[in-house]
Amino acid sequence: MKAIALDVMGGDFAPCEVLKGAKEVISSTDIKLLLVGQERLIKKTLEKIKFGNYSNLEIVNAPEFVTMKDSLVNYLRGKPNSSIRIALNLVKDGLAQGMFSAGNTGAVMVNAKFILEPLKGIKRPALAVVFPTQKGETIVLDVGANADCRPEHLYQFAVMGSVFFKEIIGGDNPKIALMSIGEESSKGNRLTKETFKILSQTDLNFIGNVEGHTLHKGVADIVVTDGFTGNVALKVAEGMAENLYSHFKNDFTKNILHKIGLLLLKSGFKRLKKKLDYSEYGGAILLGVRGIVVIGHGRSKTKAIKNGLLTTKRMIESKIPEKIENRIAEVMNA
Amino acid sequence: MKAIALDVMGGDFAPCEVLKGAKEVISSTDIKLLLVGQERLIKKTLEKIKFGNYSNLEIVNAPEFVTMKDSLVNYLRGKPNSSIRIALNLVKDGLAQGMFSAGNTGAVMVNAKFILEPLKGIKRPALAVVFPTQKGETIVLDVGANADCRPEHLYQFAVMGSVFFKEIIGGDNPKIALMSIGEESSKGNRLTKETFKILSQTDLNFIGNVEGHTLHKGVADIVVTDGFTGNVALKVAEGMAENLYSHFKNDFTKNILHKIGLLLLKSGFKRLKKKLDYSEYGGAILLGVRGIVVIGHGRSKTKAIKNGLLTTKRMIESKIPEKIENRIAEVMNA
Repeated sequence: MKAIALDVMGGDFAPCEVLKGAKEVISSTDIKLLLVGQERLIKKTLEKIKFGNYSNLEIVNAPEFVTMKDSLVNYLRGKPNSSIRIALNLVKDGLAQGMFSAGNTGAVMVNAKFILEPLKGIKRPALAVVFPTQKGETIVLDVGANADCRPEHLYQFAVMGSVFFKEIIGGDNPKIALMSIGEESSKGNRLTKETFKILSQTDLNFIGNVEGHTLHKGVADIVVTDGFTGNVALKVAEGMAENLYSHFKNDFTKNILHKIGLLLLKSGFKRLKKKLDYSEYGGAILLGVRGIVVIGHGRSKTKAIKNGLLTTKRMIESKIPEKIENRIAEVMNA
Repeated sequence: MKAIALDVMGGDFAPCEVLKGAKEVISSTDIKLLLVGQERLIKKTLEKIKFGNYSNLEIVNAPEFVTMKDSLVNYLRGKPNSSIRIALNLVKDGLAQGMFSAGNTGAVMVNAKFILEPLKGIKRPALAVVFPTQKGETIVLDVGANADCRPEHLYQFAVMGSVFFKEIIGGDNPKIALMSIGEESSKGNRLTKETFKILSQTDLNFIGNVEGHTLHKGVADIVVTDGFTGNVALKVAEGMAENLYSHFKNDFTKNILHKIGLLLLKSGFKRLKKKLDYSEYGGAILLGVRGIVVIGHGRSKTKAIKNGLLTTKRMIESKIPEKIENRIAEVMNA
């Protein structure tokens, strides 16, 4: 039986919401869940939320855990027995095929690259998110694993994104675009201009540059960018959406007509929020390491944890790492 | 009398909306407007919109104009008599102190740098926007003038931004932040890590890194970034806002309750839109060249043109270029 190592200690609402998410998944799945964290706390919480007994459940004790405030040095050198490290080691040792954590993204990424190591031929693992657009979904990568990139890295991101798109979103020959600041090949920075040339010469379905404001239109299936730009773009989009929601909440409750209006729109808002919800896939996916690593948002609650676990499961079943390794070997030898 | 050279041919709704914007400003101002564009077309449009006669108005014929589709080569080498170039030459020759265009941003920037030249001591002019936040306004620069930057450029952006903030937004010792992908000084790319060190050693009020999702919270008065990242961030924010508005429009008109709800919320939406409206300042400001250059959004209508002209006027009155030159001399000799 395949297994997922779940970091029970990661996230703003850990361990309670994490275990509630696990509860949603465990009964209807043929996958084993390894709950990694402080054993006593896990047992107490399982009881509290009336988890029930399942044969496909196991607790793996991890005495330490990484917080959101821990610095790079802390989570690299310190805390060798953190739930993140122990979960990753379970994947490395073949006791689990994937891990999910809603904990410190930096800590998961850095430790995953170190413990699981890049796949053969992969120069830089990259963090991918599934971005909701007007037409459907666009995969954006890298959104934070590599702050400084070279053109050949972005080329590999395009290849990894294509494999992920084909297996998880579905669809052959996905359209690949490069994030830039103008549509012409001459627009952009040194990195994008050079990458544009490389992507144009491959047999990938490269459709050219996209700009920040066209990202939401869904013109491309995959958008590649360096991890610095991708991270800023993703966070600006998140911040903008939150900003608007908080304006609605604060501005529209002072006036009785607005209050009624909001009430009437409630179902619409709910659907809209779902449409634009980044938690549909439960997190970001670290592509290019030996094993499946899915990183949930720190604010993940039950539903996001559940979706993250389901994404991890689908990725395990689709054998994403093997397929990326094969595809990279093909294109690098072409 | 001070004068603004107005590019009548620039923008998606030129010349009609541009001249309507001019009409809103002309009667109540002590500034001269030089209408730059195809003379016959301008005269015909003035008549059509019943502009009236004003002594502080003059038409300057420009036979050519740059379109949004023109490429870099086109607007650099071709079209020497474009309205953009002629408007900039009026500033260079001292016949106007500032220019406003809602035309091709790239064409205005490139030609402005070439015709007006950078101020003494300025290594790279930068494009700034006033970003509406939950607390007020944050100036973000560079949003597109320099795709590749060095740390000393970002330092100068901070200095230019401070002068602009003090004069136009108001307030001494503005808080300056660096756009990055983590709050720690160790987070970011090579450029931001190096810039962090430099900014920490100056007497600017440097408060550290901000991330994409905190931009809207208004924690800083000025956010500096390279022109590539800044452009992507700005456009993602614009795209996100448009995306939400278009969802409202499309999703909430199919159901009668939603329709009524929308109607009740109308005044609230209007106020919210105004709060988040990027057209309040009428455009982006090119800081660091010898003269005032304000670039409106291509989709500018009457109100945005009016606001752009008023921003141009305020910048002329505040003598921004002289003050930037003085401040740069001070900090470079410190």
